[in-house]
Amino acid sequence: MEVFGDLNSGNCLKVKYTADHLGLSYRWHELDIMAGESRTDVFLAMSPFGQVPVVRFDDGRALGQSGAIIRFLARGSVLLPDDAFTQAEIDQWMFWEQNFHEPNVAGARFHVVYRGEPVETRDPDKVERGEAALDFMEGALKTRDFFVGAALTIADIALLGYTRLAPQGGFQVDGRKAITRWIARCEDVLGLPALH
Amino acid sequence: MEVFGDLNSGNCLKVKYTADHLGLSYRWHELDIMAGESRTDVFLAMSPFGQVPVVRFDDGRALGQSGAIIRFLARGSVLLPDDAFTQAEIDQWMFWEQNFHEPNVAGARFHVVYRGEPVETRDPDKVERGEAALDFMEGALKTRDFFVGAALTIADIALLGYTRLAPQGGFQVDGRKAITRWIARCEDVLGLPALH
Repeated sequence: MEVFGDLNSGNCLKVKYTADHLGLSYRWHELDIMAGESRTDVFLAMSPFGQVPVVRFDDGRALGQSGAIIRFLARGSVLLPDDAFTQAEIDQWMFWEQNFHEPNVAGARFHVVYRGEPVETRDPDKVERGEAALDFMEGALKTRDFFVGAALTIADIALLGYTRLAPQGGFQVDGRKAITRWIARCEDVLGLPALH
Repeated sequence: MEVFGDLNSGNCLKVKYTADHLGLSYRWHELDIMAGESRTDVFLAMSPFGQVPVVRFDDGRALGQSGAIIRFLARGSVLLPDDAFTQAEIDQWMFWEQNFHEPNVAGARFHVVYRGEPVETRDPDKVERGEAALDFMEGALKTRDFFVGAALTIADIALLGYTRLAPQGGFQVDGRKAITRWIARCEDVLGLPALH
């Protein structure tokens, strides 16, 4: 398969983490989204959402939206246990991430990292909600090693994407001990180098 | 099962539409979220997200996040066909809805409907993105009757929730002919009275 992505994007890294952990082979196409490379006619014909990541399979079908992609790639694997209720608990975290965590944590980071604006000029509403999202994760991780069940799933991968990159957006992670330990645990399972 | 919800919330209506269409029996508990009824200790012990909707099953397990709930309720039904790639296409729209449509369309509507603020004081960023979300749906619906495949799925239900209520948030739907026809089509399948 081919992955159209941006290695600076947490959403795209979720696909990379999943594919690498499952040993899936792929060809990565690095796109410059700030130069409009995810909005060209060719790209939009493949995926009208005009966002990375997109995965194009060998039969020509394409899929966008990181959550949909990693859920599809992980089916039948240890990253997505078969039990229906366990999958629903994973979905619960994945939808929460896209609805409450990503728009705020990634949104504020976009302002700093992609637009090059000072941390002080971040949208206060995104900062407040992003901090609340991290606080909520911290609370949840105080009583568990991974978000669902006893091992890493795509719920962790979905949350790891932008939580691992949150300091680049001006969010403190070091002071959140449960998150810090969970990131190290995920990095260990996924074979990622420590980022901090 | 029991549903803890707010009939004024599009996210909660998604659960109602799904359960009613599938003929699932449930007891609905109407909560006043502005009075903090989704943030009480009892509620948070059931679902720490502190948001409606939440479904509690007869075995005592609870599930939050509308997307996770309707995906779980719809498994094995016509609303979620078995084919893995079809499910991934449904997930694609459902994640997009929670990430790009809901924070903006429902966010702006919340300001007007729940806070009672004038339409003119909506967050301009949410208005712009909400309009873009509706434009994107309009484009997609010009070439199809439902979002995935030839019949109604939970992708349509997920998008119907707040699109049907968008005018209450100051968004024009009437001028978008493809959306207007799709809403009528969904209302017909789901047996809902026309809202406008």
